[in-house]
Amino acid sequence: MSTENPTHNEVNFATPRSFGATLKSHLKETFFPDDPFRQFRNEKSCGRVVKKAVQYFIPIFEWLPNYNLRLFRFDLLAGITIASLAIPQGISYAKLANLPPVIGLYSSFVPPLIYAVFGNSKHLAVGTVAACSLLIANTIGEKVSFKDDPTLYLHLVFTATFFTGIFQTILGLLRLGILVDFLSHPTITGFMGGTATLICLQQLKGIFGLKHFTTKTDVVSVLRAIFENRDEWRWQSVVVGIIFLIFLQFTRFLKRKRPNLFWVSAIAPMVVVVVGCLFAYFAHADKHGIQIVGHLNKGLNPLSIEHLNFNSQYLPVTLKAGLITAIIALAEGVAIGRSFAIMKNEQVDGNKEMIAFGLMNIVGSFTSCYLTTGPFSKTAVNFNAGCRTAMSNIVMAICMMLTLLFLAPFFSYTPLVALSAIIMSAMLGLIDCKEIYHLFKVDKFDFLICMAGFIGVAFISMDNGLMMSIGLALVRTILYAARPTTCKLGKMQDSYLYRDTEQYPGSTGVPGVLALQLGSPIYFANSNYIRERILRWIQEEDDVVNDEESVVEHVLLDLSGVTSIDTTGIETLIEIRKILEAKSIKLSIINPRLDVMEKMIRSHFVDKVGKESIFLCIEDAVEASLFTPSTQKKQHQVFV
Amino acid sequence: MSTENPTHNEVNFATPRSFGATLKSHLKETFFPDDPFRQFRNEKSCGRVVKKAVQYFIPIFEWLPNYNLRLFRFDLLAGITIASLAIPQGISYAKLANLPPVIGLYSSFVPPLIYAVFGNSKHLAVGTVAACSLLIANTIGEKVSFKDDPTLYLHLVFTATFFTGIFQTILGLLRLGILVDFLSHPTITGFMGGTATLICLQQLKGIFGLKHFTTKTDVVSVLRAIFENRDEWRWQSVVVGIIFLIFLQFTRFLKRKRPNLFWVSAIAPMVVVVVGCLFAYFAHADKHGIQIVGHLNKGLNPLSIEHLNFNSQYLPVTLKAGLITAIIALAEGVAIGRSFAIMKNEQVDGNKEMIAFGLMNIVGSFTSCYLTTGPFSKTAVNFNAGCRTAMSNIVMAICMMLTLLFLAPFFSYTPLVALSAIIMSAMLGLIDCKEIYHLFKVDKFDFLICMAGFIGVAFISMDNGLMMSIGLALVRTILYAARPTTCKLGKMQDSYLYRDTEQYPGSTGVPGVLALQLGSPIYFANSNYIRERILRWIQEEDDVVNDEESVVEHVLLDLSGVTSIDTTGIETLIEIRKILEAKSIKLSIINPRLDVMEKMIRSHFVDKVGKESIFLCIEDAVEASLFTPSTQKKQHQVFV
Repeated sequence: MSTENPTHNEVNFATPRSFGATLKSHLKETFFPDDPFRQFRNEKSCGRVVKKAVQYFIPIFEWLPNYNLRLFRFDLLAGITIASLAIPQGISYAKLANLPPVIGLYSSFVPPLIYAVFGNSKHLAVGTVAACSLLIANTIGEKVSFKDDPTLYLHLVFTATFFTGIFQTILGLLRLGILVDFLSHPTITGFMGGTATLICLQQLKGIFGLKHFTTKTDVVSVLRAIFENRDEWRWQSVVVGIIFLIFLQFTRFLKRKRPNLFWVSAIAPMVVVVVGCLFAYFAHADKHGIQIVGHLNKGLNPLSIEHLNFNSQYLPVTLKAGLITAIIALAEGVAIGRSFAIMKNEQVDGNKEMIAFGLMNIVGSFTSCYLTTGPFSKTAVNFNAGCRTAMSNIVMAICMMLTLLFLAPFFSYTPLVALSAIIMSAMLGLIDCKEIYHLFKVDKFDFLICMAGFIGVAFISMDNGLMMSIGLALVRTILYAARPTTCKLGKMQDSYLYRDTEQYPGSTGVPGVLALQLGSPIYFANSNYIRERILRWIQEEDDVVNDEESVVEHVLLDLSGVTSIDTTGIETLIEIRKILEAKSIKLSIINPRLDVMEKMIRSHFVDKVGKESIFLCIEDAVEASLFTPSTQKKQHQVFV
Repeated sequence: MSTENPTHNEVNFATPRSFGATLKSHLKETFFPDDPFRQFRNEKSCGRVVKKAVQYFIPIFEWLPNYNLRLFRFDLLAGITIASLAIPQGISYAKLANLPPVIGLYSSFVPPLIYAVFGNSKHLAVGTVAACSLLIANTIGEKVSFKDDPTLYLHLVFTATFFTGIFQTILGLLRLGILVDFLSHPTITGFMGGTATLICLQQLKGIFGLKHFTTKTDVVSVLRAIFENRDEWRWQSVVVGIIFLIFLQFTRFLKRKRPNLFWVSAIAPMVVVVVGCLFAYFAHADKHGIQIVGHLNKGLNPLSIEHLNFNSQYLPVTLKAGLITAIIALAEGVAIGRSFAIMKNEQVDGNKEMIAFGLMNIVGSFTSCYLTTGPFSKTAVNFNAGCRTAMSNIVMAICMMLTLLFLAPFFSYTPLVALSAIIMSAMLGLIDCKEIYHLFKVDKFDFLICMAGFIGVAFISMDNGLMMSIGLALVRTILYAARPTTCKLGKMQDSYLYRDTEQYPGSTGVPGVLALQLGSPIYFANSNYIRERILRWIQEEDDVVNDEESVVEHVLLDLSGVTSIDTTGIETLIEIRKILEAKSIKLSIINPRLDVMEKMIRSHFVDKVGKESIFLCIEDAVEASLFTPSTQKKQHQVFV
């Protein structure tokens, strides 16, 4: 048996990249992972670059020149369908936000127009959402009561919407989509579920026809308020409400059974509103104690830019409302735009969408609109109705304009109980039990994150529930980073491959050699853990086999999966080497990646451990370990 | 050429582990990575288990029975050496904390005794530290002035020390050493450097003999205070101070040049104090305007347990001081104990050390001591003086007891300028320029974290500087997790290995096949990024080679390095598969690890993508891709 070091693959010890090159690469990965300006690099003519730039920043210039009548037919139908949904939703959600109902109609006129100009998604339908409406009502309501001072309340809501738009635009311009990514799907599922539960229970006020209610928003307070005001229950309200609710739920059931009948559930809220108006008008329902919406004047959006209130005593609540709703609205809107785009195998630029939402809300706050985004229900209807471009939003806006100019007073007869039934039906659809069960089955921590949001929102408060859920998600992030998984590698039978011995129990170790695969990254927060873990692996090896001949003499650290290391990590590797040397154990490093190799060279770790101890693959390292003097006596055991 | 699927290694699709097994494994990794109770599992007799438990929790019972005279000789010498350092350091740092100097002597009597009973490190020497002394002075000083109400100030310092002990004990019992890990080495280097700079500049008050000074602690205010009070400068003070400083720095220089003369720099502070006392006594220095320490009464530590002040108006400052100093003292003490243990190839149990420090501070707060930990300078002297066990701390305590009983009044003649010179000399040694330069060379982000601490402490405030540094370190943690490095794999020349094409430029891709290695983990915060990055890789491949034949038809995702995935990650993989399917690109998964495979099975991803698309190694996947109909026409290009 030759005692020379067998030939093995060449490890690359070349000079590391310059700091400038590394920084540029990291910045690009962090902020421009999709490389959005790639299309500009290939252009030669200046005119084409300018044209492409305009199309990039104002997407309507990209699809409008290619627009034709055929596309318009689809968009017209989709636009009318979502307009029929926009009217009842607009009025209902405005009531949820404690705003005059006409604000809800205004919010489906101007914002969709802005989105059609700047937005990227072909399917997204713009409108108000229940969760953010309630959040705004809660947050602004802490400071100003909508009953005592409705004008101030309204102006503060516009101001909060303005801040929402500012935050969203800044996030989009600074390409900080990474922050919105931290609102994970389990968090949103839990938050929306909890909010939907809350809103459903609050609608019982409208169904039962109560006048007195609680301002608190947790489940216990709401249920108590319903039962304490039992004497105010009105059976007429209850009957009408239940009939509407059953009708709406039936149309949803129909949609699930026969997907091509989706349009029935889409126009159902409008039907409920129209029937309710007629009933209230002809039956003089207001004399029978069925409350109606009231106050829906004709006319388009008045300007509200002079009403924005930046008074320092209200700034904390408006900024808070603006920031929280900005992030939630972005998380929902961008995710929804993306998921529908994927169904059509298209891509949506998340950062550009954020800018579009931001502009939508800024201009909306100037024109008496409040927070809008891309709600799931409306977008789904838009998609199923066959929209082809954002023109459907323009069509919806035009329908809304006609409603505001001519039809608005008609809707003032809408009974509140009808609105409650519409909201309840929509909210019941938002509690995604199937998804929650799926989380429970696949990943218990994600289930915990989801339930923290759900229960926090339902029993404590909306922002506390959201914070608890995000907090748990951040704890998970830190745990991932602080406890990277390591495993012991063994050689698989009849193969040259080395794999995790726990995952492939048939794989066996080589006597005297302990091969470990380390998880990524190795840095200050997990260096101590990694060192202790490696020493424990060695202890366990020595404990298991009490045979003198099998005591560990070589430790091979496979760094194939380690993509980053910092100075503390390098110091820890140096310490590990020292400790092993004192135990007469030789350390070998396998396949260090680019960033790790650069740091190892710069810190002279490579010189300390020796280039001959760094290998490109585990097979080379194992071979080399067999050829060192201390293990020569073992050779016959392996090569039998 | 056969069109059958060639045989390849068997992937393990076995039933996943139960939730209980996974949870137990994760909890063990998080809280018990060093498996401290392993020694108990092998014991049969109950008596031996009890004995081992007592030795585990009260370490003195482990080393004391084996103690002998030979060890005692070493410990006696080391103990006397560190006692000679403890007296000047104790008096100086107590002045730094605006406390009566005798408190510094008390703090080197009781706490070392407690540590000797409960501590694990053989080399750690217990004493007060400059940084925490200043931090306590700042924090308590925000609420109570030590000039106006010295008694209350003193009682609050004892209370803060009590809370420090409580926090440290709780962290140790709950095995939350993970929190202390987040105070990384760059953070500590920067924080200590900034604090040392601050303290050095503050000592100029003592050197110049000023009476009036600023209470602010940033560099600008301190320099301004020195120059504004120019009329108070006393040349006698300056001359004496500079002589002492030059002497102390010379002994340090001697230690660096001839390490075996370390004891010279160890007794140098004591020499300065004794010379200063004699000079002040015989030259009646106090009449020449050289201030002396004063007020050092005889007698041991009085009990202070009844003086602990839990009044709610002071609780915020005492809790804040307690918490911040707890974490800093732990980070420093445990790290120092560990690094010296490593030099002797021993291990220190971090969590047990934390409990020892906690008990030390709790008992200290009952006996008129303030915050103590294991300072680097004292421990280094102890180590170099040849200590063998924690008995050196007991020897130091006994020396301190003799000093308190007989010698204390002598030290009341110590000139303040001598103390200032001692502190300045110690602090100059704490500014680790070599380490800062090393950080700059190896890892620029770590350098930034260090400088944020340094500059923040020096120019803003101690806690703001610390927060900035830790904040940057947490941002780095989040960036690691949010942007895991991916790379393209290529086949190396003359080898079957696939490696990063950027690190090994000689490696080439297979036509039509794009092999990517993903970084770990894949979860909600980076799912969007990973999807966009993969699509960009495909775009770049198609852009680079405009040849029709080389357009990407297979994407192989190597998940060897991916140790964790959550539900959002699984959903993203499903989305990626859909997107690729629409582009007629086939997706293959390579070597999914244990946790990832379990989630893929539970979420039915394995069924969606098909077991035949999951391979154990990249070579199998590449072979299989060559045998699919769409790439058959390429076969001849590879097998030429």
